[in-house]
Amino acid sequence: MEKYFDRLWPLNRSLTGNGNRETLRILSELVDLRIREIPSGTTCFDWAVPPEWNVKEAWIKDSSGKKIIDFEENNLHLIGYSQSFEGKMNLSELKEHLHTLPSQPDAIPYITSYYAPRWGFCLRHDQLTDLKEDNYEIKIDAHHDSGGSMTIGEAVIPGETSNEILISTYICHPSMANNELSGPIVSSFLYRLLMSSQRNFHTLRFIFIPETVGAIWYLSENGRRLSENLKAGFVLTCIGDDGAFTYKRSRRGDTPADKAAEYVLEKSGLEFSVENFFPTGSDERQFCSPGFNLPVGSIMRTRYGKYDEYHTSADNKSFISFDAMEESVNICAKVVDTIDKNAVYMNLLPYCEPQLGKRGLYPTLGSRKDTGEYVKAMMWVLNQSDGTKDLLDISRLSGIEFSALVEAGNALHSAKLLERIS
Amino acid sequence: MEKYFDRLWPLNRSLTGNGNRETLRILSELVDLRIREIPSGTTCFDWAVPPEWNVKEAWIKDSSGKKIIDFEENNLHLIGYSQSFEGKMNLSELKEHLHTLPSQPDAIPYITSYYAPRWGFCLRHDQLTDLKEDNYEIKIDAHHDSGGSMTIGEAVIPGETSNEILISTYICHPSMANNELSGPIVSSFLYRLLMSSQRNFHTLRFIFIPETVGAIWYLSENGRRLSENLKAGFVLTCIGDDGAFTYKRSRRGDTPADKAAEYVLEKSGLEFSVENFFPTGSDERQFCSPGFNLPVGSIMRTRYGKYDEYHTSADNKSFISFDAMEESVNICAKVVDTIDKNAVYMNLLPYCEPQLGKRGLYPTLGSRKDTGEYVKAMMWVLNQSDGTKDLLDISRLSGIEFSALVEAGNALHSAKLLERIS
Amino acid sequence: MEKYFDRLWPLNRSLTGNGNRETLRILSELVDLRIREIPSGTTCFDWAVPPEWNVKEAWIKDSSGKKIIDFEENNLHLIGYSQSFEGKMNLSELKEHLHTLPSQPDAIPYITSYYAPRWGFCLRHDQLTDLKEDNYEIKIDAHHDSGGSMTIGEAVIPGETSNEILISTYICHPSMANNELSGPIVSSFLYRLLMSSQRNFHTLRFIFIPETVGAIWYLSENGRRLSENLKAGFVLTCIGDDGAFTYKRSRRGDTPADKAAEYVLEKSGLEFSVENFFPTGSDERQFCSPGFNLPVGSIMRTRYGKYDEYHTSADNKSFISFDAMEESVNICAKVVDTIDKNAVYMNLLPYCEPQLGKRGLYPTLGSRKDTGEYVKAMMWVLNQSDGTKDLLDISRLSGIEFSALVEAGNALHSAKLLERIS
Repeated sequence: MEKYFDRLWPLNRSLTGNGNRETLRILSELVDLRIREIPSGTTCFDWAVPPEWNVKEAWIKDSSGKKIIDFEENNLHLIGYSQSFEGKMNLSELKEHLHTLPSQPDAIPYITSYYAPRWGFCLRHDQLTDLKEDNYEIKIDAHHDSGGSMTIGEAVIPGETSNEILISTYICHPSMANNELSGPIVSSFLYRLLMSSQRNFHTLRFIFIPETVGAIWYLSENGRRLSENLKAGFVLTCIGDDGAFTYKRSRRGDTPADKAAEYVLEKSGLEFSVENFFPTGSDERQFCSPGFNLPVGSIMRTRYGKYDEYHTSADNKSFISFDAMEESVNICAKVVDTIDKNAVYMNLLPYCEPQLGKRGLYPTLGSRKDTGEYVKAMMWVLNQSDGTKDLLDISRLSGIEFSALVEAGNALHSAKLLERIS
Repeated sequence: MEKYFDRLWPLNRSLTGNGNRETLRILSELVDLRIREIPSGTTCFDWAVPPEWNVKEAWIKDSSGKKIIDFEENNLHLIGYSQSFEGKMNLSELKEHLHTLPSQPDAIPYITSYYAPRWGFCLRHDQLTDLKEDNYEIKIDAHHDSGGSMTIGEAVIPGETSNEILISTYICHPSMANNELSGPIVSSFLYRLLMSSQRNFHTLRFIFIPETVGAIWYLSENGRRLSENLKAGFVLTCIGDDGAFTYKRSRRGDTPADKAAEYVLEKSGLEFSVENFFPTGSDERQFCSPGFNLPVGSIMRTRYGKYDEYHTSADNKSFISFDAMEESVNICAKVVDTIDKNAVYMNLLPYCEPQLGKRGLYPTLGSRKDTGEYVKAMMWVLNQSDGTKDLLDISRLSGIEFSALVEAGNALHSAKLLERIS
Repeated sequence: MEKYFDRLWPLNRSLTGNGNRETLRILSELVDLRIREIPSGTTCFDWAVPPEWNVKEAWIKDSSGKKIIDFEENNLHLIGYSQSFEGKMNLSELKEHLHTLPSQPDAIPYITSYYAPRWGFCLRHDQLTDLKEDNYEIKIDAHHDSGGSMTIGEAVIPGETSNEILISTYICHPSMANNELSGPIVSSFLYRLLMSSQRNFHTLRFIFIPETVGAIWYLSENGRRLSENLKAGFVLTCIGDDGAFTYKRSRRGDTPADKAAEYVLEKSGLEFSVENFFPTGSDERQFCSPGFNLPVGSIMRTRYGKYDEYHTSADNKSFISFDAMEESVNICAKVVDTIDKNAVYMNLLPYCEPQLGKRGLYPTLGSRKDTGEYVKAMMWVLNQSDGTKDLLDISRLSGIEFSALVEAGNALHSAKLLERIS
């Protein structure tokens, strides 16, 4: 994991560009990615894919010719989607184009101007304070190519059915660690873990996209399919730090995604918190827009906006932990597995109980004073399988562990007493 | 306000009669009232408009010729709708026709006999105790005219739509202050305040009617229109004393009327209480009868039945406060305004987010670590505007002030991103 | 009651057989039972009526010829549905066929093997421990007659309508007192009590059946009628001990059965507990199977599985109390009566209030400062009778006693202001 982190870290990711392309190329060593190029200008709902942005160099030199700020050194120094510029300025003219975070004077802020033409640099506030009156030379050699494209990656682990579980993560952040190298890395290792498991009921889909416009484009192409097939989805973001897990519910709030994530976190014994949906945040905003209203939540550790390092150069390798990311992969895998096994069954003999004894599913000696746990689990599954409840619902109702209900469901399904309807 | 109170106080209001006519004539100085006469005998559902009742004189003299009880002095002395009578009686015969309140010996009770022929007087219990054996002379000169009529007043402030907000108050109580001169006076001043505001989305309607049979007649004529158009309504009664506000919910309990009244009272910082609907009380009983089940609650201060002075001569000018009535007018105006602005919108671009930036509604510089409040408000309105939620619902969900959502809604509506559907 | 208990106690009840036949013959002295014989082999859903089982003798003798275990002495000694056997064995061979309860060494366990051929005896664990190495003689003379039948009893108290209330109890347990002589005895005395009351709105039906296969057969014949007509039902079991009442809800949880049972128990002032439905237990499992999902709960005192004596010889006459059973009869009668009176009405004049005064239902003198309780009850019933609420719902909403609402409902019904729709 760390090896991949170190290789991905220096790349200049944005909505588009070679940094994204290289990021997906590296991740495709882990994930069987189908990488696609969406031409700039492609319209998607109310939006259009922006021109492709690439930067050759960007720096400020003082009058002695010394580079005092250099994009080479930290790609956060340049405003995302900055225009090109070449010229000389005194300090006060230059300051119009410099951005700092006075409250965190040690950190370079992360700033973008995707949809309005601007040029500018970001730097530590301490450095700004130290700048002297001088004649500064500025060079930004950046290209906005309307003949370019936006690069996205997609991978599918086929399942028995076209019912889908979606993992969505974004690849548009330059050198920051929790937000957002943790998302693509955890997603990639999750893919590997799930790929190695037995065949799933659901088709598992992973998308690696730039935030917002990437999700909007993806929905413009795939929204109809997702509306029909998507049973649960998660945006993975800010999932690499040591903090407690945060689950942000889908807009509907009680979908299989929500029930499974909350069940797994409860059973994990780990600290966690749950937040209701809110329409600011990441790409769940698009998946949960009212026209789609998909069952998509977000699994995080310390949420964006909740830690000081967020959207600054301080969100770096020392802020995250590879043990935490390992744990994130495992929790996400359990969530996916829980959704996959969380059947809704129809009882095929719904009038009275089926005779379990003649199928070898019931003790023939009526001696026990308490019904055995295994019989209880079967009875609950049979009784509640009227097509309105899934196994997680039955677990809540009965107090029986989900895994015991899964086992009971499998036994009853094998005995042809149940049909799985989703 | 006090001037109007003093002029209205002595009038002998009842279900019908010249006292009501004069009351509406005086109020029409404040309100552009359409005054109508509904003929006695007019049937309305299970009821009929009663004969018109007017009193010339009503008194009891002792054998010395001294008037010991006189309607002229206090119109509560005569039972409402009392029959005429002329004759002489000893004390014990007379007592059959005298009504007092032993538990409040200083107060004259308010008693009516609208639908059974009776004659009688009401007096202080202390006075009854002091009455001596004597030969009393009684005269009641009252007319029950089946060729008369019931007088009602109605005023409308037109709005952009035929969606209606209704204010209903009653004018059938003789000389009592909180119940019920406060209702018509607060309603009239509320009319003036709302009349002077800018044009509303809703049509505002005010009715001044006798309780019960007046409301029943009004519904017999207008029930169909109200069933279609009424979005919220309030019965204003007992709204002149210094006590805390009381909001009595509509039968449905969660209508725009209820949500707005409770929101305004919560935000007012004032003490208040909320009661669920109950089918005794005032005209909300008719509006909320099961056939209509209209969104009508009742805004009060100290509720009928909750103060000792209720339905006695002690409910007089000293029991109320013109400051309190002023405050009542303002609270009611805020409630009406809240309902008027409490839009249900449909998001016209419900698939993913619209691009707010290109419409000048979003900061072009992606720098803020927290999304601004204004952007949050727009995001919430867009996300939740699927036709099932109004702005008050969104305020509860998001924790954002209603006024900020109204502003966001207006901006998005101007940008043609929303359509108002109610 | 005690007399019947003593006569029923020694009979060898099981799924089928002469013990059941004799049990129903004795109960038919109390209940006008229609006794029916369902042939062995009759299929019912996934099940078939088993062969009829009767036992002539069953004992174990030691080598001295002394009967050390004798079915004659306690019918729990023989496994229910035991096969015949004749032979001699040493102790260790015999032990393969002996069943005890080590944790309750004084009690004979109750064990059955209905659907797998087996022979065996049950005994006190203390007796097992004392058994010496010997040559034992075993004789079980039992018949499994596939030409036999299963015996069930049914009684009906006709009502004004075909809407039904069902009391179901089971007759398949040999000599045990709480589970399950209390059920048939309480049901029989309940029948007598209800038979002597005035004519009911509902048809009352009582069934006396063997557990599980009896209920399944009954539903196979009557399930369609019950699905249409059954408004409430109860399985009566474990209802003879001194413990607090237990109400186990129907699967739906909020049916008239549930509301009435809980209301009566709350008002009784007795201690009680309520349990949500669970699909292990007694015949409510069949009535509440997902295909039927009938409004059937279970009224018990100390529930099966909650007392040590359950399913052992210690569940005997000293464990129960005839006073408790008397109380059980009375509580059940109140529950049935509450359901019977728990009307859903439609207000026939739903637009505004009907004029109660002209029907003699309202005081003509408008003097009371508080509306009388009786008028309040009428107002509530009129206001809420829109076909969605029964009188118990209205009682919860209004805080008015159910009995007052019943009285108000009757008065309004007599005045033709209400129609009873269920």
